[in-house]
Amino acid sequence: MSKTQTYKVSEQDYVTIGKKMLMEVGVTEEDADIQIGSLLESDRKGIYTHGLFRLNRYVEQLKHHYIKPNPDIRKVNESETVDVFDGDHGLGAVVGYKAMREAIKKCKNNGVGIIGVHKSNHFGVAAHYAEMASKERQIGIVLTNASPAIAPTGSLKPLLGNNPWSISVPTHLGYPITLDMANSVASKGKIRVAKDRGEAIPLGWALDEKGTPTTDPIEALKGIILPVGDYKGYGITLMVEILAAVLTGSHFSEQMVDHDANDKRNVGHLFIAIDIEKFMRYEYFEGRLKELIESIKSSPRIQADREILLPGEREWQSKLNQEDGYVHLPQKLYEALIQLYQENGIEIPKSLLVEQV
Amino acid sequence: MSKTQTYKVSEQDYVTIGKKMLMEVGVTEEDADIQIGSLLESDRKGIYTHGLFRLNRYVEQLKHHYIKPNPDIRKVNESETVDVFDGDHGLGAVVGYKAMREAIKKCKNNGVGIIGVHKSNHFGVAAHYAEMASKERQIGIVLTNASPAIAPTGSLKPLLGNNPWSISVPTHLGYPITLDMANSVASKGKIRVAKDRGEAIPLGWALDEKGTPTTDPIEALKGIILPVGDYKGYGITLMVEILAAVLTGSHFSEQMVDHDANDKRNVGHLFIAIDIEKFMRYEYFEGRLKELIESIKSSPRIQADREILLPGEREWQSKLNQEDGYVHLPQKLYEALIQLYQENGIEIPKSLLVEQV
Repeated sequence: MSKTQTYKVSEQDYVTIGKKMLMEVGVTEEDADIQIGSLLESDRKGIYTHGLFRLNRYVEQLKHHYIKPNPDIRKVNESETVDVFDGDHGLGAVVGYKAMREAIKKCKNNGVGIIGVHKSNHFGVAAHYAEMASKERQIGIVLTNASPAIAPTGSLKPLLGNNPWSISVPTHLGYPITLDMANSVASKGKIRVAKDRGEAIPLGWALDEKGTPTTDPIEALKGIILPVGDYKGYGITLMVEILAAVLTGSHFSEQMVDHDANDKRNVGHLFIAIDIEKFMRYEYFEGRLKELIESIKSSPRIQADREILLPGEREWQSKLNQEDGYVHLPQKLYEALIQLYQENGIEIPKSLLVEQV
Repeated sequence: MSKTQTYKVSEQDYVTIGKKMLMEVGVTEEDADIQIGSLLESDRKGIYTHGLFRLNRYVEQLKHHYIKPNPDIRKVNESETVDVFDGDHGLGAVVGYKAMREAIKKCKNNGVGIIGVHKSNHFGVAAHYAEMASKERQIGIVLTNASPAIAPTGSLKPLLGNNPWSISVPTHLGYPITLDMANSVASKGKIRVAKDRGEAIPLGWALDEKGTPTTDPIEALKGIILPVGDYKGYGITLMVEILAAVLTGSHFSEQMVDHDANDKRNVGHLFIAIDIEKFMRYEYFEGRLKELIESIKSSPRIQADREILLPGEREWQSKLNQEDGYVHLPQKLYEALIQLYQENGIEIPKSLLVEQV
């Protein structure tokens, strides 16, 4: 997505149009708030692939009931520490939010809470849910499966998702440390960008159809993308597939329908919340972690002018650089937002036309 | 370690000499059984770096009380689901075994059990503890910290351990799927082997002292080893450092003494056990996982004669290829074992001199 120009947009306008579109296809106001909140958070963090960019597709899926606008999200297997949620094909962000909220509640009561979810959908950025827990001074762990993309080491067939997972830990900084990663060296999206630019890709990103390492993005897109650390990344993504999908009762491997397909999906997630106070006083933990953070931050740099970042810090810097009540959008997304207003026959709010940062 | 010749040794002899050596420096018979069991399991799995190879060093550490022969391992923070163990500087394998056993017990009672450990030592192969849980039809997750080895992305200073972690899941196969990995692309050991052979190392394994990518193993050993997937592996190893060490009250980062140092260490571990039956009937889970395993096993191969392996399967094949009651040792280890018998003035058992496989 081009970042040539950035526009400052009022959050209220962003939320208004988003909620209107979701509610028009039958989503309740509460759920629309959750879903748009998730998109907004992604855009504020500069993760534009998971923000407003997704809205049209969600609305389309809701219209055709591939995603149910008003799902009956319910517990199917209940205990003090562990529950399983049936997401009833609701919006992933809504199902995910409700499941993580329950994991956090269980964690408060029992020291740890785990919620497995099936019949969910694409839930956006995994970090959001992990950070719901770290905001509560808990450790949040989130795993989700995804459509097949990665082949087991030695196989030519992508049987495993590039299954994102996230761990978030609270800090003294005012924002958490949050690991959020998929398991390939590079995404298919990055390979497509190289193709469009006519550039070669580095060795180690992908294999061609025959399983030979390639630097040609066209051959790579016909072939398979490689996991981080070779067989290590295969192991990681297989474990996420097992924990988020096999264990939760969702579709897995080739059963998984791609989110571009016109069909119901059955995505699985696993949400874990762990109470820090069960190990030590929270303040003591925070002090110990502060010491580690400061040693990382003050360590000698490879490039003197390049700050050493914590996992997730770039995204938090993007978010914190934005004035409260506003979100910065790159030109293409800004234009998409304007178009949404036009298509919905609403007057374009003045705030949209304003400031260029 | 050279694998030129392999010797078949009776487990009983292996255990006898090992236990004798440990008990002579004050370890109880129960604890010696646990420690030698851990070494034996490693050697049977072909993980020779974590088997008999370690015994002399452990004995030396026990003699000097860097490792306490008869530790008072105790709970310091107790709840239904989460405990913290003070390992009292005992043998890592003993502390780890007792902590994981407690996690498994808590899991049986409450659906999930988590034990944090501090004041432990090198505990051997992380997979062993994760597999204690998967043997009980639970999901086992194990994390440990280690001496500083990996630099945060952009930093020149190795502040984080190459912190191994393991996840084990039971299957229908008679052995589990077990991911067990450290977070670097290649170990320092592999780089040392390249140096000894006068060979270059692949780009991506290490940076030199100035942070420039290098293929020279000598420069690499003066510099820093790289984590898998660049900033992703940095994030993973940082999270393990936080969960296994900061959270458990153990030493972390540069506080961590190397296991070659003549000093007490304070290693941290985290053990998690999750009850599969809280999600679905175990048999149903096993059937679903069988389906996934079979699709992986039968998928088209890059090399027709190369079986597609599950994580941990190579180690299990090594173990299962050995007759019950015997362990296969490569020549160097076999010679080390003979030497132990000689040094201890015990008659070399006939079984040791026998068969070459």
